[in-house]
Amino acid sequence: MDEELGGISEEYYDIPPVKYEYLDHTADVQLHAWGDSLKEAFEQCGMAMFGYMTELEYVQIKDVHTIEASADDLMGLLYHFLDELLFLFSYEPFLICKKLVITEFNTQEFKIVCRCYGEEFVIGKHPQGTEVKAITYSAMQIIDDPKDNKYEVFVIIDI
Amino acid sequence: MDEELGGISEEYYDIPPVKYEYLDHTADVQLHAWGDSLKEAFEQCGMAMFGYMTELEYVQIKDVHTIEASADDLMGLLYHFLDELLFLFSYEPFLICKKLVITEFNTQEFKIVCRCYGEEFVIGKHPQGTEVKAITYSAMQIIDDPKDNKYEVFVIIDI
Repeated sequence: MDEELGGISEEYYDIPPVKYEYLDHTADVQLHAWGDSLKEAFEQCGMAMFGYMTELEYVQIKDVHTIEASADDLMGLLYHFLDELLFLFSYEPFLICKKLVITEFNTQEFKIVCRCYGEEFVIGKHPQGTEVKAITYSAMQIIDDPKDNKYEVFVIIDI
Repeated sequence: MDEELGGISEEYYDIPPVKYEYLDHTADVQLHAWGDSLKEAFEQCGMAMFGYMTELEYVQIKDVHTIEASADDLMGLLYHFLDELLFLFSYEPFLICKKLVITEFNTQEFKIVCRCYGEEFVIGKHPQGTEVKAITYSAMQIIDDPKDNKYEVFVIIDI
């Protein structure tokens, strides 16, 4: 099948014009986080998202912000919690978080208050990971099993 | 909502353990290619795929290989054509192609013979683009319209 290029005419080296383009790039990744409580699994899931955006060892704790999220059910709560974190990063103060501490975790009224520790994202200082475009409900799972002491969440994010 | 870290206790700087992982990364991109004939649209689609794997301006024409593809229908032909090209890259001779010239394009018996011009892919010399994992039939479109002189293909590849 193969053959060496020997003393070959110049037309072999002609380069064709470009008549193509790349459309509709889509991608996602599933975050899986766990903890000794559902609250910790949520915190870990948020940190997993930030860990995908950069390498967290380059991030220092210089600043703290408080976010709030509320919803009508537990999945909605996880969604809005992550969405608030994404907003914190995407707009002023452009905070990349190394640590999240949920100070109010209300699974009756579906409300979270969370303290977010980190610093402003600075290109050059912080390696650019993958841009997170959106949180999704797709195949979302929340395991809240006190009997087996199992607390886990699975969330797919668009990247 | 936000607040400066002032003279703050050391526990603020404690870093939580990692209790998360990343699962099931999936991604795809759609190639769209066209030409003055369906044959040229196929050639361009193959070059589009190689253009996604590296930057083709760094690739020289040093070698030529011939591939063959056959199928039961036109979509199958496009699929197997791209799959043969992917094979050419993934295994010996690890050829990255800058130019493709289809020398036999039989849309009755669904057979292609193609000459593939390029060189062995060498990390360091050639920028690493995105790994192409597989060709797919998903949403594949082949426009073969001599009346309007429109020849286009759309192929989604897994990356």
